[in-house]
Amino acid sequence: MKKPPVVALLSSAISVQYLADAFETAQPGIDVRMGDDLGPLEDIDVAVCWFPPHGRLAQFPNLQLVQSLAAGVDHILADPALPRHLPLCRIVDDTMAAGMKAYVSWAVVQHHRGMKAYVASSDAAKWEEQPVVSPRRHRVGIAGLGTLGLACADALATIGYQVRGWSRSAKSDLPAGVTGFHGADQLDEFLSGCDTLVCLLPLTPQTQGFLNADLFAKLPRGAHLINVGRGDHLVEADLLPALASGQLSAATLDAFSVEPLPKDHPFWGHPNILVTPHIATRTDRLVIAQQTLANLAVLRAGQHPLNQIDLERGY
Amino acid sequence: MKKPPVVALLSSAISVQYLADAFETAQPGIDVRMGDDLGPLEDIDVAVCWFPPHGRLAQFPNLQLVQSLAAGVDHILADPALPRHLPLCRIVDDTMAAGMKAYVSWAVVQHHRGMKAYVASSDAAKWEEQPVVSPRRHRVGIAGLGTLGLACADALATIGYQVRGWSRSAKSDLPAGVTGFHGADQLDEFLSGCDTLVCLLPLTPQTQGFLNADLFAKLPRGAHLINVGRGDHLVEADLLPALASGQLSAATLDAFSVEPLPKDHPFWGHPNILVTPHIATRTDRLVIAQQTLANLAVLRAGQHPLNQIDLERGY
Repeated sequence: MKKPPVVALLSSAISVQYLADAFETAQPGIDVRMGDDLGPLEDIDVAVCWFPPHGRLAQFPNLQLVQSLAAGVDHILADPALPRHLPLCRIVDDTMAAGMKAYVSWAVVQHHRGMKAYVASSDAAKWEEQPVVSPRRHRVGIAGLGTLGLACADALATIGYQVRGWSRSAKSDLPAGVTGFHGADQLDEFLSGCDTLVCLLPLTPQTQGFLNADLFAKLPRGAHLINVGRGDHLVEADLLPALASGQLSAATLDAFSVEPLPKDHPFWGHPNILVTPHIATRTDRLVIAQQTLANLAVLRAGQHPLNQIDLERGY
Repeated sequence: MKKPPVVALLSSAISVQYLADAFETAQPGIDVRMGDDLGPLEDIDVAVCWFPPHGRLAQFPNLQLVQSLAAGVDHILADPALPRHLPLCRIVDDTMAAGMKAYVSWAVVQHHRGMKAYVASSDAAKWEEQPVVSPRRHRVGIAGLGTLGLACADALATIGYQVRGWSRSAKSDLPAGVTGFHGADQLDEFLSGCDTLVCLLPLTPQTQGFLNADLFAKLPRGAHLINVGRGDHLVEADLLPALASGQLSAATLDAFSVEPLPKDHPFWGHPNILVTPHIATRTDRLVIAQQTLANLAVLRAGQHPLNQIDLERGY
């Protein structure tokens, strides 16, 4: 009888206790280990990771799979001792795309239609209109056309916004009504038509610091920035001057270089910045468990796992 | 040479000055009249209306068309002296649907994801999560599947919500992923699966007071009510007890029986009610002018105008 897999849950940033239940549901009796004492390290078959401690993965001699518990893998690639001969996979689930579409749609409308002012007016008993501008006259650009970027482009186009997307290489599967741009050559043209810019790029050495003063200057004056990628996409020091000058009118940020965002950080309480605590979307925990176990089974059968990362590209 | 049309702009609720410019753009030199003195009443060819004073339309002996300046016509049908032998038309434009999709999508996410609390946390420098529940597990029901209802159903389904719709008669053109219900027989079943209920019904004698205590009791406990129909769809006195008991968790209201909502109205400042000043969407003024003039031309050619109301049904 084949030995059931041994799963290690590795995180230096969030509690993974909630994931253990999902693995038990997906395969009752499964051996899930977490925390500082993982037992004999040679037992571990698969590591499910969120910002794993550097060097930890290299300590498992019989490891077969490194699995991110979400869409991003930058936190795993940052480990200099990452065993690069092993397959590294991320989770792609439709539930996650739905959450992102909801958050991004909300954030676009929140600023475009001045909804924060309406909420304040309601509390203050004021019947006061903000300008009513149709979504048809507002251009939203999505930087990064992976699964989540394409999903957001589709949702925003369905609502009625003018949507454009930019990606490293040309895309053939753009949703109806979405204009595509690609490569460094077309970046400036893309940016010049973004009344709202949504960052959903993967974090790679090339995209680190993508959201900086130079880029802001290429947006239409008064643009709204939404960062639902990674904190390190944004050069934080460049944001406040861009807001102060009016080059940007607002920023909606769900990811930060240091999380939780430090208590004394100037983004907190800024009238034109909304800070949310990395909640734009979450992977369904049962989906994580099921995809991880399916990937392990597929690997043991000598086949390719789902959503494997290309280590050259980094996503 | 054919005489250019004479247009009367009639409103007892909003200024229509802004519309006059659009008519001038659509047909330079056109004769547009408004206010108390309309000149000789026999001149008037078409009346463009928003809550027209009762009896006014009957005073124009040569009137050929009664045109609502938006999607609703209840404010015109309420006139007991309405010349019912004349064609009555409403405006349908894609711009208006886009605005409604944006508002309704925002309102659904705002409550479902607890976004008001995130805005407050950002202002108060608190890194604090609300429960992250996927749109896939949240059911939104749209009562009324006209142009705007279908558009909202499509947008919400694209975002990833579980969407159901209810209409008087069965619909064959439901967007992908939307479950249809129809008629009085299926109303209770429809309501029992609405975590959020969006009212986009036309206002008719049958739908007046549709949103009342009996209906609230048929929703899942803690449902969110969004009224973007008419103020008279809601029995206002029934809302506060439903919120107090927890049967409803929140209400987002864009239309009221009396507008502007009186200063001392209990909806103002209620922690679980959002009042917005009838701004969910607006018809593009140029579209109003163009559709009105096109309808008049079509009528003069002996054909049927666009978006004519069936006076029996009332919409």
